[in-house]
Amino acid sequence: MKALVKPYGKAGLTLVDDAQRPETGPQDVLVRVLAASICGSDIHIYDNDPVFRDRIRDGQIVGHEFCGVIEEVGDQVTTAAVGDVVAAESHIVCGTCYYCLNGLKHICQEMSGIGFDRSGGFAEYIAVPAENAIVKPSGVSIEVGAILEPFGNALDTARRVDLVAKSVLVTGCGPQGLMAIAVAKAAGARKVIATEPSDYRREMASRVIEIHSRNGGSEDSVLDARRPDLVEHIFQATDGLGVDVVLEMSGHPAAIADACAVLRNGGSFVALGLPSQSIEFDWANHLVLKGASFYGVYGRRIYQTWFEARELLASRAVQLDALITHRLPLERFAEGFELLKRGSAAKVILYPDLEYRSLFD
Amino acid sequence: MKALVKPYGKAGLTLVDDAQRPETGPQDVLVRVLAASICGSDIHIYDNDPVFRDRIRDGQIVGHEFCGVIEEVGDQVTTAAVGDVVAAESHIVCGTCYYCLNGLKHICQEMSGIGFDRSGGFAEYIAVPAENAIVKPSGVSIEVGAILEPFGNALDTARRVDLVAKSVLVTGCGPQGLMAIAVAKAAGARKVIATEPSDYRREMASRVIEIHSRNGGSEDSVLDARRPDLVEHIFQATDGLGVDVVLEMSGHPAAIADACAVLRNGGSFVALGLPSQSIEFDWANHLVLKGASFYGVYGRRIYQTWFEARELLASRAVQLDALITHRLPLERFAEGFELLKRGSAAKVILYPDLEYRSLFD
Amino acid sequence: MKALVKPYGKAGLTLVDDAQRPETGPQDVLVRVLAASICGSDIHIYDNDPVFRDRIRDGQIVGHEFCGVIEEVGDQVTTAAVGDVVAAESHIVCGTCYYCLNGLKHICQEMSGIGFDRSGGFAEYIAVPAENAIVKPSGVSIEVGAILEPFGNALDTARRVDLVAKSVLVTGCGPQGLMAIAVAKAAGARKVIATEPSDYRREMASRVIEIHSRNGGSEDSVLDARRPDLVEHIFQATDGLGVDVVLEMSGHPAAIADACAVLRNGGSFVALGLPSQSIEFDWANHLVLKGASFYGVYGRRIYQTWFEARELLASRAVQLDALITHRLPLERFAEGFELLKRGSAAKVILYPDLEYRSLFD
Amino acid sequence: MKALVKPYGKAGLTLVDDAQRPETGPQDVLVRVLAASICGSDIHIYDNDPVFRDRIRDGQIVGHEFCGVIEEVGDQVTTAAVGDVVAAESHIVCGTCYYCLNGLKHICQEMSGIGFDRSGGFAEYIAVPAENAIVKPSGVSIEVGAILEPFGNALDTARRVDLVAKSVLVTGCGPQGLMAIAVAKAAGARKVIATEPSDYRREMASRVIEIHSRNGGSEDSVLDARRPDLVEHIFQATDGLGVDVVLEMSGHPAAIADACAVLRNGGSFVALGLPSQSIEFDWANHLVLKGASFYGVYGRRIYQTWFEARELLASRAVQLDALITHRLPLERFAEGFELLKRGSAAKVILYPDLEYRSLFD
Repeated sequence: MKALVKPYGKAGLTLVDDAQRPETGPQDVLVRVLAASICGSDIHIYDNDPVFRDRIRDGQIVGHEFCGVIEEVGDQVTTAAVGDVVAAESHIVCGTCYYCLNGLKHICQEMSGIGFDRSGGFAEYIAVPAENAIVKPSGVSIEVGAILEPFGNALDTARRVDLVAKSVLVTGCGPQGLMAIAVAKAAGARKVIATEPSDYRREMASRVIEIHSRNGGSEDSVLDARRPDLVEHIFQATDGLGVDVVLEMSGHPAAIADACAVLRNGGSFVALGLPSQSIEFDWANHLVLKGASFYGVYGRRIYQTWFEARELLASRAVQLDALITHRLPLERFAEGFELLKRGSAAKVILYPDLEYRSLFD
Repeated sequence: MKALVKPYGKAGLTLVDDAQRPETGPQDVLVRVLAASICGSDIHIYDNDPVFRDRIRDGQIVGHEFCGVIEEVGDQVTTAAVGDVVAAESHIVCGTCYYCLNGLKHICQEMSGIGFDRSGGFAEYIAVPAENAIVKPSGVSIEVGAILEPFGNALDTARRVDLVAKSVLVTGCGPQGLMAIAVAKAAGARKVIATEPSDYRREMASRVIEIHSRNGGSEDSVLDARRPDLVEHIFQATDGLGVDVVLEMSGHPAAIADACAVLRNGGSFVALGLPSQSIEFDWANHLVLKGASFYGVYGRRIYQTWFEARELLASRAVQLDALITHRLPLERFAEGFELLKRGSAAKVILYPDLEYRSLFD
Repeated sequence: MKALVKPYGKAGLTLVDDAQRPETGPQDVLVRVLAASICGSDIHIYDNDPVFRDRIRDGQIVGHEFCGVIEEVGDQVTTAAVGDVVAAESHIVCGTCYYCLNGLKHICQEMSGIGFDRSGGFAEYIAVPAENAIVKPSGVSIEVGAILEPFGNALDTARRVDLVAKSVLVTGCGPQGLMAIAVAKAAGARKVIATEPSDYRREMASRVIEIHSRNGGSEDSVLDARRPDLVEHIFQATDGLGVDVVLEMSGHPAAIADACAVLRNGGSFVALGLPSQSIEFDWANHLVLKGASFYGVYGRRIYQTWFEARELLASRAVQLDALITHRLPLERFAEGFELLKRGSAAKVILYPDLEYRSLFD
Repeated sequence: MKALVKPYGKAGLTLVDDAQRPETGPQDVLVRVLAASICGSDIHIYDNDPVFRDRIRDGQIVGHEFCGVIEEVGDQVTTAAVGDVVAAESHIVCGTCYYCLNGLKHICQEMSGIGFDRSGGFAEYIAVPAENAIVKPSGVSIEVGAILEPFGNALDTARRVDLVAKSVLVTGCGPQGLMAIAVAKAAGARKVIATEPSDYRREMASRVIEIHSRNGGSEDSVLDARRPDLVEHIFQATDGLGVDVVLEMSGHPAAIADACAVLRNGGSFVALGLPSQSIEFDWANHLVLKGASFYGVYGRRIYQTWFEARELLASRAVQLDALITHRLPLERFAEGFELLKRGSAAKVILYPDLEYRSLFD
């Protein structure tokens, strides 16, 4: 079958057409991939970044955001059926460690990642444990189905603290930031302030706000993260108090520092973005003396987040279609990666078989 | 000055025009009332119900929902100014009991109620402690200012538990129920199900849903509380699970019983409505075996609720104008009470001086 | 093998010696029972109470509190080994329903109960899913291992709300009440007030307090639930405020009513006991106007509660040995049931093979 | 009167005997100081550290930890009486800012600190607002009364998260660390691990553990913070998982780094200690990827913390006497400061009038 594989130690990915179709174990389902989406991590893999270099086997199929249709189910599977259109929780957990037995599967000690530690979804077929296959919410497109996995991260980030009537700073308007904005609006935030240096992404942010606002988003604002008066401006926009909540989606040290500066006393800072190294942090002033709370978010709660995602998308409280900016056949994957690296796209969808996908409209 | 006073032991209220204008103490403000609103409790007082009969002095001015303009401030007042347009927190607390010192002023042991234990707002003037005078949010009408006080109760009820992506049953569509619906929608509820026997109120509920929905409220429903298949219908509307959350605004034993029946395992039941006597309660099945949580709500948090109310109203996430169904000069108070008793009104506004009020548009 | 079975429709239990030794499925473990304990539910079964009558098959082995040693493990079992000494979570859950997938396995919709819906532990052997077999904490006796299951209920009840520095009323001093007292003391409660009509049980309660107190329990008290001034006395003992927290372990309507009366404004009421029918409940005064919270507790969180239990017992913060008041060979089960029905015992242990049990000291 | 005053821009403090006795305002009480205690901040002031240099007026009386007897009450005071023995909340708040009105007085925007921004307690007399005077719990010595203020910080830190059955790392065994250990034990922590480089302080920590343990503290350990295998050792002591909770009381960058390293996934880190400058922080690994929570603690909740402190001390769940290592007349203040700077004391008490103090035994 067709697949994108990683050549160890080299940049880029290789399209092969003779990858082996995966075996379906007794508790697995075989999914024919209809649409896959490129993640920021995939770009790190593409660029042969040290962070993932030694985690990916030579020749391994990558990709962990996808939506497809079940074509086979293993002998012991009772919860999924051939014909189900599904996305997948990309974290395969052990089920028996301290965390798994304490309702914290998302931080399992023996986690295995689809597209990292085992074959991924940039391919015609993928086999996943039946437990990890989640039926796509009704009324949502296949393409949005392919971005349910990353939506879960944004959703958990935005849902870590109560947002009703709160002022919320979202730092970074890449796909995660855009989805966090959407959730913040749906979750009752009074005022969303988004910061982002890229013009393209700021425009996307404004559009997401407009879609999710009842009042045209007149309370909300999207700011150029590079403006010199950024901190002062945010204080002014919040009556001098600072923001109630930060959702940090960028991982940029400067964005983190600015966000710490404008967080109000007693405020909540939720962190999803990953700086590439340690940062300078004003522990005394930004954590202790403010009486602030900082929450790190990893992955998605398994499976509470998926249930919430379904409700928010099925009821159209959150609408993600506008985030799908580009659609390409799998063969043109390199264009997709280039678009993302240039910052000229939000989510890029790759189709292993565009014709087959069209049967599902 | 003009005022509505309660004759002890008799039905109705009496309009007098020679009530004494209140003294302004050193920590008080004198408010000229622009608009007042009739509460359900006022109807109990009007009807000389035993519940309040001995709490109200003969000849006392009643009314506790109002909005006005400050005309005088006491010597020690630093937080309010002449000309401020304000509503009032109707509970005057001691500030020194266990509850007041523990962040729980709303359940103060020595509470005094405006319009119950001291002169109320159905009058041209009222003096209140400066601390209790809350500036009306900008962009909100004087009339909505007059219903901020009851809005606080509904807001605290709807905000007692997280509603994002939840199915929420609201029992009773009187003013409190209507406001709870509005908050539930603004706070991210996925599906609001409202029940109410009165046709007029169900229509009001549908309108409130429409105003607060981005999608026409297609997920939501307003049901006749008397339909025989009510419980079954709600189970069907929630995939057989039952609702995540109940907001009980009616105090009706039958509504409480139905709501208990349809609450899902592990669900949350928030109670504001007051039954007139003890009820039959299936403690084992509706509380223990379900692992359910029940929360009683009294008053409004002082003053967190007022801040949240301001944010929700100023940003137009919640819009209460549609609830103001009738406007009358104070002299025609009896019509207002009759409308409410017939169930043909939501909120009725009384104007001590309609001409003066018109200066504030 | 030997076992106690239930004859359908008749009182009592029957000891048989030719019960079939259970099959061990691929994901099961076979446990040789060292000690089993009689639960209050077992007494209902013994007495042929309607509540369980039609749930138990004719001739079924009952009993769901036990500790034993694993003698066989199924082919697919990776988490347990022959020789492990284990207790068992008695609720076997489906793993795939809404609740199981949302971290709420203890309220699974498709739950099956050991000793109710399938063979129980009053026998020489029992097979249970490996997932349900929990290794006994080190330093804890086999007999305490046999009461870990009910301890989980008491633990979850006492842990439902923060108890540090709180005044805590425990209503009912049967085994569940005694264990709740122990946990409340270990969890930092300032003052435990226990109520119970039985002299024997009040004496047990005093002993449990003494064991778990650093200061002889001088702050704590054990009261006769029948004293006419009970409510007044509890108010006096709490500076007129009432108690911060109620742990209701009895299910008695009178105990519930008294506990509601003495709960302070804004207090928390945790309910485990099961009244046999609906009760009169003063919804307005005891729930709404107090701004109180009521929490029902069912079962034990799977498996968070087991981990907490292990820590509390292994560190000797909680010590349950004193609760084991009687030890009998399985053959003398009738004596055990009679002791419990007379209220002359806390926990009664039955040994299928006393000699074999003695090998594990 | 006698007092210790700060000469601006110079090291040390000056004892004067002609300080003016403070005026008692209408809402104030005049307290005759029986015992005062030296805080770590006082040492910074003593050493003329830049951090407080420009905050203290030339000649101002310092000191903010004390216990005394009320000798006068202002005209408007209703909550305190002559003869009351009181400690004082050292933060005087505005009562009208956003934080004060939202139940967050401890982070008031217009806070004034006793002994920093206004006259302190190293004197024969001090006047404080009646609201800030808190009656000493019964059964607690005057000297412990003098350290209630700092106890509040430790209490709030240890109480920020649930500790029942948790493993808790306390970094730093100065007075704050010692008090945090005491609270952690009283609040049900299963295992306390304390780290500290000073031999003297480690010995103090062991003693505090012994006092607050029912079982001799066999689960607990006090470790030399300098041992090279510290991190590894703590992992071993926690089954390889790491600790559930960190209480960071030292402000030392190395202690913070070690504590971050040993916090388990999903763990909670509560920070009270203040590093003197920004630190290197591994945001990605220690916050985000762990899904950890960090909480800064400032001051004490006003007045919830004081109520909790009273309960814990009056019931002897927490016992602080052992922390009072030195007692000196005010005149010998320099010895006290030197003892603390050498690390040879925990809490040092200064008596303005030792003879008068002795009347209160």
